[in-house]
Amino acid sequence: MSNQVIVEVGGCGSSLVRDPLTVDRALALAPLFKALGDPVRLRLLSLVASHAGGEACVCDISGTFDLSQPTISHHLKVLRSAGLLDSERRGSWVCYRVVPSALQQLSALLPTGSEAS
Amino acid sequence: MSNQVIVEVGGCGSSLVRDPLTVDRALALAPLFKALGDPVRLRLLSLVASHAGGEACVCDISGTFDLSQPTISHHLKVLRSAGLLDSERRGSWVCYRVVPSALQQLSALLPTGSEAS
Repeated sequence: MSNQVIVEVGGCGSSLVRDPLTVDRALALAPLFKALGDPVRLRLLSLVASHAGGEACVCDISGTFDLSQPTISHHLKVLRSAGLLDSERRGSWVCYRVVPSALQQLSALLPTGSEAS
Repeated sequence: MSNQVIVEVGGCGSSLVRDPLTVDRALALAPLFKALGDPVRLRLLSLVASHAGGEACVCDISGTFDLSQPTISHHLKVLRSAGLLDSERRGSWVCYRVVPSALQQLSALLPTGSEAS
């Protein structure tokens, strides 16, 4: 019988302070962080996530930002391309919803209170 | 007596799914996400954070990456400028340490398991 022990280092659910992040996981996660590296996109994601029912349509969003509709659409598209938001057309509006698994991946990566200190 | 009630929305410790993020908090947090929007920087931060004593010197880091020393130094500088890493010179080496409050800010922003689903 082999006495090899397989240890998963930096696996799917491990925080970045516990084990060095694997190359594959870093490649998968970096685009999520990059998409959130803009204050407008952070606010857009938060607006959608905290809206009633966890969903917001473009009509709920537009009034909050002093930005043109094409600019808001561009930022929503970046969040959607990164897999942080899903969208669905409802009549003449497009509605957005956060992808819970994407936020869970980021949450799992960051340390809990006791790990971070 | 005034019957005004001041309610803090999207305050310092609130996750982005609970309340819409304030403009000031989005402006403060976006650079942290932006700095982590690169797979090499994510791995560098994780390598430093998970290293013995929560600290790693350039000599501990260099061998892990198939990158030139100036490239690694550039990425470490970006992480330091964003306030995610602190550095200290020790003889001929520079040593890096994660800034716990920076990671705590990101952790606090992201939803806990039950909030994310």
